[in-house]
Amino acid sequence: MPFAEKALIEQLRRRARRGGHLVRLGIGDDCAILRIAPGCELLVTTDLTIEGTHFRREWIPAESVGHRCLARGLSDIAAMGGDPVAAFLSLGLPRKLPQAWVNRFMEGLLKLADRFGVTLAGGDVSESRDRVFADIMVVGSVPHNAAVSRAGARSGDKIYVTGALGGSSGALDELLSSRRRKLSPKEYPRFFNPVPRMEVGRFLRGKNLASSMIDLSDGLSTDLGHICEESKVGAKIQSGALPLAKIGRSRRKVDLRLALHGGEDYELLFTAPADKRVPVNIGRVPITEIGYITRRKRVVLLNEDDAASELKAAGWEHFRR
Amino acid sequence: MPFAEKALIEQLRRRARRGGHLVRLGIGDDCAILRIAPGCELLVTTDLTIEGTHFRREWIPAESVGHRCLARGLSDIAAMGGDPVAAFLSLGLPRKLPQAWVNRFMEGLLKLADRFGVTLAGGDVSESRDRVFADIMVVGSVPHNAAVSRAGARSGDKIYVTGALGGSSGALDELLSSRRRKLSPKEYPRFFNPVPRMEVGRFLRGKNLASSMIDLSDGLSTDLGHICEESKVGAKIQSGALPLAKIGRSRRKVDLRLALHGGEDYELLFTAPADKRVPVNIGRVPITEIGYITRRKRVVLLNEDDAASELKAAGWEHFRR
Repeated sequence: MPFAEKALIEQLRRRARRGGHLVRLGIGDDCAILRIAPGCELLVTTDLTIEGTHFRREWIPAESVGHRCLARGLSDIAAMGGDPVAAFLSLGLPRKLPQAWVNRFMEGLLKLADRFGVTLAGGDVSESRDRVFADIMVVGSVPHNAAVSRAGARSGDKIYVTGALGGSSGALDELLSSRRRKLSPKEYPRFFNPVPRMEVGRFLRGKNLASSMIDLSDGLSTDLGHICEESKVGAKIQSGALPLAKIGRSRRKVDLRLALHGGEDYELLFTAPADKRVPVNIGRVPITEIGYITRRKRVVLLNEDDAASELKAAGWEHFRR
Repeated sequence: MPFAEKALIEQLRRRARRGGHLVRLGIGDDCAILRIAPGCELLVTTDLTIEGTHFRREWIPAESVGHRCLARGLSDIAAMGGDPVAAFLSLGLPRKLPQAWVNRFMEGLLKLADRFGVTLAGGDVSESRDRVFADIMVVGSVPHNAAVSRAGARSGDKIYVTGALGGSSGALDELLSSRRRKLSPKEYPRFFNPVPRMEVGRFLRGKNLASSMIDLSDGLSTDLGHICEESKVGAKIQSGALPLAKIGRSRRKVDLRLALHGGEDYELLFTAPADKRVPVNIGRVPITEIGYITRRKRVVLLNEDDAASELKAAGWEHFRR
């Protein structure tokens, strides 16, 4: 096997916690065996991370790449109101990649896994030509028929987001505009080490508060579009209500356009019937009401003067580097 | 999204069979939701297929690449004695790749999925620089504590294989030696369209016949080594007993070295206690006894004169193109 592939598999194998009550058999057989609690359904999500498309090695430390890779999958589980159980990782690594980079990538990934009690239960490593890629699969569980889909929003429901918006794309914006070549991960936590809103998702599902939910990976305009499309509704958003992320040492607020269109915040966007009382904080995460669902199938942005314009799903894609 | 990525996702979405009793919600939400029968555990396996490492586009039709990609995962489920439930596919596609290639890849994959009642329940598509890669994840189920691992072989157990050995590497050998640039898929079925031994695995688990099992992906010498290592035993193999694959139009038998070391046959290798009666055929698949498990931790090959030599796990890697 090339480039210490075998060593990496051995490393994974040692670190994969065996014998947990949920994961019976981890790395080292043809399949991992998972046990899901009675009365629960299984959630499965896959996310592909490719160097050059989703990250640049010179911008993001290896630990952050590993962290973000798993965070994407965990955030999908959170958006259904589920509990994560196990993760599976397929890595493609260029031959010339330093072993230290791989070790730090794994450290970042496993630290986040530990934080949420997720077992790395399997995976695969292969040689890629010149770019790192990582495909993460996360398995979770949720009580029967309790998962919160994108399709449940109804006219009159209120729309909420967790945390703040645009923090991740705010950092990317600074990197792309070449104002700075290196950013401090501490000053841009949502870009370097986004923490999935696991507890919020679980709380909303457990209290039966959310009628629909999605995680903000592509940006508010795109992801709200997904909810509207799947629920066959429209939405009105108050631009003045959007919680703008504060970034950098000066904690300056990001531009509205980043809050509207910037991706990879991994906050939750959800709807709840108007008669349900949604807390202002869940855990320590602030919840902000930003608008409401309409019967008319358009997504409309209201500015501070209540002037309306259509909010189109806008190009986050060209940001992704 | 680049290169008709969105079109592909739409295509997947239409084709993913929704509403099956096992897969509640397929492509089009944050996660797929799977339901596993009560009293069952979950099996999960991931397999990464990379152009240049696992296949060459000029040698293998796109349909076969798709077929083989899923077959690898299904074979892992078979090797545990499980039933496949759903598959998840992450694709990296170069921008210049013809859409027709992608369509045919998907056709090959979905045809095999249909054959085994597997739902393609999710996935991800991204742009890769110049090589196709495909990461497949297969989820299966197996009754509680019934999965057949690699670790159960005991001294005195007999060793068996399904089908014939070396058929896949026999084809590759012809391609590499440049005797032929194109091979007929019909004359080399185990190379182009290996059918996972799903029924055999399920039968052996159901009748409680196999003490250990693995699928032959890396070659007999390597995979038998895995069983011996995990079971902390050794083995003796009769070279004269090995079922050699017949390939090509002339149905000539492959060389012994290919049967010993050639990979990607996706046959099953299993052990069973000596007092259990293992059928000569399971379904229509022939079962051949090839040796027995020993206490001494070496893998030994006995030739026709019963002369012994150590069978070392030998380099299949350099074959893989």
